[in-house]
Amino acid sequence: MTTEQLIAQIHKKKSFLCVGLDVDLEKIPKHLNEEEDPIFAFNKAIIDATHDYCVAYKPNTAFYEAYGIKGWMALEKTIQYLNTHYPEIFTIADAKRGDIGNTSSRYANAFFEDLGFDSITIAPYMGKDSVEPFLAFKNKHTILLALTSNQGAFDFQTKLVDGKELYKCVLETSKTYTNSENLMYVVGATKAIYLQEIRTIIPESFLLVPGVGAQGGSLAEVCKFGMNDQVGLLVNSSRGIIYASKDKNFAQAAMENAKELQSQMAKELAGRF
Amino acid sequence: MTTEQLIAQIHKKKSFLCVGLDVDLEKIPKHLNEEEDPIFAFNKAIIDATHDYCVAYKPNTAFYEAYGIKGWMALEKTIQYLNTHYPEIFTIADAKRGDIGNTSSRYANAFFEDLGFDSITIAPYMGKDSVEPFLAFKNKHTILLALTSNQGAFDFQTKLVDGKELYKCVLETSKTYTNSENLMYVVGATKAIYLQEIRTIIPESFLLVPGVGAQGGSLAEVCKFGMNDQVGLLVNSSRGIIYASKDKNFAQAAMENAKELQSQMAKELAGRF
Repeated sequence: MTTEQLIAQIHKKKSFLCVGLDVDLEKIPKHLNEEEDPIFAFNKAIIDATHDYCVAYKPNTAFYEAYGIKGWMALEKTIQYLNTHYPEIFTIADAKRGDIGNTSSRYANAFFEDLGFDSITIAPYMGKDSVEPFLAFKNKHTILLALTSNQGAFDFQTKLVDGKELYKCVLETSKTYTNSENLMYVVGATKAIYLQEIRTIIPESFLLVPGVGAQGGSLAEVCKFGMNDQVGLLVNSSRGIIYASKDKNFAQAAMENAKELQSQMAKELAGRF
Repeated sequence: MTTEQLIAQIHKKKSFLCVGLDVDLEKIPKHLNEEEDPIFAFNKAIIDATHDYCVAYKPNTAFYEAYGIKGWMALEKTIQYLNTHYPEIFTIADAKRGDIGNTSSRYANAFFEDLGFDSITIAPYMGKDSVEPFLAFKNKHTILLALTSNQGAFDFQTKLVDGKELYKCVLETSKTYTNSENLMYVVGATKAIYLQEIRTIIPESFLLVPGVGAQGGSLAEVCKFGMNDQVGLLVNSSRGIIYASKDKNFAQAAMENAKELQSQMAKELAGRF
């Protein structure tokens, strides 16, 4: 998917919501455990109920790997279902991969070509040749971890490197990579004020923002400091939407929570576009 | 596996060799493609031929994910085969994972409990709460990326943070994590001289050293600067062993290359123990 197609979808749906599909079998409604593939059954119901209110889905691969082969089959079915039934949706493999060059190429092929994701999250620690194999894919997007929303972000990401924080060094250095126009960045919403400075380094890039809601971030602040003239934001919510209810009405409850976030986003967009 | 068991195995076999199982179907002998599971058939033959000369095997998960469900089945069969037939062998999932706390817990369960690996490689960028869920497992080992052997290592890892390189900051900070005694570290052999300083920070930890051979590192230098009184080294070779030959004799050729490295390691050990 091109960035232009993503932006068009955002304006059409008046939403820049990404729904995180982090499926935990202990948290989904009990009646789904009678299904042949409870994880996929859950995802399908959530997707069918929420797709009008979001522009992206983001399965975190850890939750699928945790169930071994069955988990991977559910992940495959989920991305196939999205690509078949909702091809306008932007898909993110939240995999946080990264390895030396020839190995990163294997990951890139697996997620972009074989599974058919539009994008993947990548850890920057190993540098240029661990990131560029992903950037080589046209109309695929590499979402680099910059500033994450967890407490451990302060261990290294905010440490000063040559007088500025490491995550800024990551942003600046990554701009020099070949095909850097295919980069997006993860920036945690718990530190919305940081977005102001981040936008001076990467004014045009899309940001994937986790941490709104459950982790305490404010949507209004994220928009105030992070939105650009191409919108430039994907705001993720996982638990707040997919676990809105544990009852048989879980999909309806997820839809209502997604719709509520979408209506807040519509207001933010209306004030700017 | 306890660290003591690993050390005992090293002295028994006079080897600290780790064989990287990075299986690429285009590089394995053609006749194996007639097998029901060519990846596992290749791994089984390599393991059966080389296990007397090495103490660890390290499948890199990228090479398995690249083949989707079939790849994951081959990975499962490989770790099961190792744990059943060669339980004294130390197993490393070279996965380079790392995510926020509850998500890292999913990865830890998947690799330590379900798959049954003794250890996993982890990227440090997200800090404490992305690493500690792995450290919580008793007699399991978390191998943190410190200084990798690729060119991109110079993008961030060697940048100065408060006057010292980021990888040293990673080493020092990680020592403060809960259950840090379960940490090992990845240190690329292409920079063996760095091992001298690294040993002043983490004198007792085991180091997983890639990059000997194909990537240009010297075994003698790695031992000179990196070995401690518990040996403290696992030196990895992947392509140099598993792709020693593309013919029907590939397992014999792999065995010979593993044996050659083991005999060099035996000499290094004999000079010190």
